[in-house]
Amino acid sequence: MSHSKPASTAEPKDAVVLTPDPLDFTALINCSRDPKAGAISAFMGTTRDSFQGREVLSLEYEAYLPMADKMLREIMAEARHCWAVHHVTIGHKLGHCPVGEVSVVIVVSAAHRHESLAAVEYLINRLKDCVPIWKKEILGDGTGQWKENEPSRELRSDISPQVPSED
Amino acid sequence: MSHSKPASTAEPKDAVVLTPDPLDFTALINCSRDPKAGAISAFMGTTRDSFQGREVLSLEYEAYLPMADKMLREIMAEARHCWAVHHVTIGHKLGHCPVGEVSVVIVVSAAHRHESLAAVEYLINRLKDCVPIWKKEILGDGTGQWKENEPSRELRSDISPQVPSED
Repeated sequence: MSHSKPASTAEPKDAVVLTPDPLDFTALINCSRDPKAGAISAFMGTTRDSFQGREVLSLEYEAYLPMADKMLREIMAEARHCWAVHHVTIGHKLGHCPVGEVSVVIVVSAAHRHESLAAVEYLINRLKDCVPIWKKEILGDGTGQWKENEPSRELRSDISPQVPSED
Repeated sequence: MSHSKPASTAEPKDAVVLTPDPLDFTALINCSRDPKAGAISAFMGTTRDSFQGREVLSLEYEAYLPMADKMLREIMAEARHCWAVHHVTIGHKLGHCPVGEVSVVIVVSAAHRHESLAAVEYLINRLKDCVPIWKKEILGDGTGQWKENEPSRELRSDISPQVPSED
């Protein structure tokens, strides 16, 4: 229920969900609700149907899980250092993500709106920059290409079983 | 269902919901989903349990409805002028809003994340600045006080039936 009440005022918490199941953004937003929060900001990344003029059918995500979890918690700590936020929740889908489906959810609650909005923007930018999650675009012409950020490239050279194939 | 797919690619649309019923943020977010959107940003304002050290029990909202609807559509047009956004949805609850309940929801979808995040922050700031919606804080000590923004003050002097009493 999207209008359920926060049950209690909890200590500020960080939550990370990395899952092959569809992301339930309602549940992730409700995780960050709190009577002490006047503001909840959320970002949801969804699979877009095109990239640079080419049709996209779906995305595939793979992660180096121990490092992805560690890095997500590090960037949450960075956000807490910069802004007075309450609860922070990050969810990322792994595996197949067809057009329109939510692949990433970032939710931050805070007493005031500016802090929650600024922290959400910081977190999605940092996630894209430094969390080892690989993305493959499956294109309408039958081809596909893996995209990776800098730490993913570094990890690829170290952790061969985690390197996705190009097929 | 928070992970339902967008049914189709529609023309960019603005939607305004002003209602005494609880706001269903899941439905409002789903309104902005689209296969052409890679990003959906949302802001939810919730009733906080304190203000300047005083306990808050609930908020009461009243609006001058024709003008509130008109102003919301104007600030949506402003946001579209500044950023390439897809769908824009704004919901505001009217009447009683207890601690933890969502009073305002702003959702913007766009191809890219920066545009959707920037437009959401712009819209909540403009809503607070210029949309004629009154807020009364019901405090734990049994008192209450109406708060209003500049256009609300101007309208109060013009539209006496819309002026909430101080009781």
